[in-house]
Amino acid sequence: MAEYDNDNIFAKLLRGEIPAIRLYEDEHAVAIMDVMPQAPGHVLVIPRAPSRNLLDADPDVLAKTIPVVQKLARAVKAAFDADGVFVGQFNEAAAGQTVYHLHFHVVPRHEGIEMKRHSDGMEDMEVLKANAEKILTALKASP
Amino acid sequence: MAEYDNDNIFAKLLRGEIPAIRLYEDEHAVAIMDVMPQAPGHVLVIPRAPSRNLLDADPDVLAKTIPVVQKLARAVKAAFDADGVFVGQFNEAAAGQTVYHLHFHVVPRHEGIEMKRHSDGMEDMEVLKANAEKILTALKASP
Repeated sequence: MAEYDNDNIFAKLLRGEIPAIRLYEDEHAVAIMDVMPQAPGHVLVIPRAPSRNLLDADPDVLAKTIPVVQKLARAVKAAFDADGVFVGQFNEAAAGQTVYHLHFHVVPRHEGIEMKRHSDGMEDMEVLKANAEKILTALKASP
Repeated sequence: MAEYDNDNIFAKLLRGEIPAIRLYEDEHAVAIMDVMPQAPGHVLVIPRAPSRNLLDADPDVLAKTIPVVQKLARAVKAAFDADGVFVGQFNEAAAGQTVYHLHFHVVPRHEGIEMKRHSDGMEDMEVLKANAEKILTALKASP
């Protein structure tokens, strides 16, 4: 497996060198809006610790990150009145990974609506911000 | 969200009431072969504790389960000389959930080969057993 690259876009984002719409952060992980959403409310949960993906991650980091995935899954379900939530974590290009810093996709799902492809393009920033507001409201309302 | 049903097939499987090809188990979780694999080596990681899915799970259970997901992801990648590994966790029917006990899908991926649909049917038991042997060998070889 290739080495971790300290200049991947999520590493830069975690260092604050490139912008992102942040939804949640704690000592262990950060949650942001995916700018190429597969459905409205598509969120990424990114642990702060560097690893290429799940395969080379510290198990302790995984253990601290998955409760954040849960928190965001609950929030997007509430925020978009979703019927379900897809959680996906892709390792290497053959599995759909495009940025080589471990991350979890959290996508609200509605009956009868297929997920778009990740490559379908960048969402309008105003739409992303409005969706982020819904998720932030849901996060505030949850325990 | 609907209540947890103590007689779902994974609950029965965990109690040993129905058979499964077990690959790994510890105090917290069990890994088995998916009998309707989306690719050869498709594994399910199932925490022992009852929850319908990620949304109602105990965060401590999630924290204990995700390292098992990692262990199996590494093993299936090695066992099938895979290019990547898909990890998926589906919450409610709209997201693809078909059994209502929390589980993680771990699927080895190869470049240029699409995953089959889960509904494409039951794999031959001898094929599943042969694939299980490969994964067990990989698990024994890993630290």
